[in-house]
Amino acid sequence: MGSAIAGLLSAGGADIEHIGSTDTTATVTGDIVILAVPYPALAGIVGTYGPQLAGKTMVDITNPLDFETFDSLTVPADSSAAAELAEALPSSKVLKAFNTTFAATLGAKTVGPNKTTVLIAGDDADAKSELAMAISAGGVDAIDAGNLSRARELEAVGFLQLTLGSEKVRWTGGFGIVR
Amino acid sequence: MGSAIAGLLSAGGADIEHIGSTDTTATVTGDIVILAVPYPALAGIVGTYGPQLAGKTMVDITNPLDFETFDSLTVPADSSAAAELAEALPSSKVLKAFNTTFAATLGAKTVGPNKTTVLIAGDDADAKSELAMAISAGGVDAIDAGNLSRARELEAVGFLQLTLGSEKVRWTGGFGIVR
Repeated sequence: MGSAIAGLLSAGGADIEHIGSTDTTATVTGDIVILAVPYPALAGIVGTYGPQLAGKTMVDITNPLDFETFDSLTVPADSSAAAELAEALPSSKVLKAFNTTFAATLGAKTVGPNKTTVLIAGDDADAKSELAMAISAGGVDAIDAGNLSRARELEAVGFLQLTLGSEKVRWTGGFGIVR
Repeated sequence: MGSAIAGLLSAGGADIEHIGSTDTTATVTGDIVILAVPYPALAGIVGTYGPQLAGKTMVDITNPLDFETFDSLTVPADSSAAAELAEALPSSKVLKAFNTTFAATLGAKTVGPNKTTVLIAGDDADAKSELAMAISAGGVDAIDAGNLSRARELEAVGFLQLTLGSEKVRWTGGFGIVR
């Protein structure tokens, strides 16, 4: 997902800085930080980089599935990975995005006959709008899906799509959005 | 939704019997009962018809939203309308279906450029398969989305789609599924 998102945003003219997931000493210079890591890695990043992330837009893309059973999420039913991140980073602007689009559909910019659409949830309207513009500039649609509490539904969509994706739906397909 | 679903299934050759939501004395003769009512009406139907519904396939199509706020579901976060129905009707085969497709897309059989797809969740494989065949016969795709616990994610998809539908997405659009 990291390279698919970087490709999309740099096609739109964004300057991309890549920080490896094992790097613990980097200086985070960007205004928008895409956490292109699996859910279990979020806590370590918060621990290592927390103080540097104040004021920044933090984009959580994770689908916190139990990948052994493919039958549940590992976050509480009334919460979400994004809500947990917002609690851990109270001075950052946390957004949920990219978790409902497979990497292949970000690269192709289409989901079958539909233009790929990234759904964004978050409480900071300016941060959502800035991310949406960067995504649109790269050639993919973006929709503001509501406040950060909607991350719970976005994670449910991501979960459902991954369970279908294991058998019923190709990784180049999934949910397309028709406006 | 009732007439859209009846139209679809009768196009596929099913015999349809319609019981009005205020009728309290009907005999339920069908094997598959589609509860094409809003969520708050389910409890009354269970109270009135419960004993007649044993052994039947009961299809819950509801999206249990708080329609005043459009900001939450009215079922507990770790449950679903379908799970509640299954608890109230332990001798019936409860399925969740049709809650992720707008009525217009069942009628048109398309969501934009995509064939309309009904997602079905439930614990009884034969009941799911029978409903899927009736839907396919009517000209719309059906996908087995897993066991009844997946109704929670289907209700999250329906909820999200309704919140987008109020502003961002037309009622003739929504989530299309690309396989």
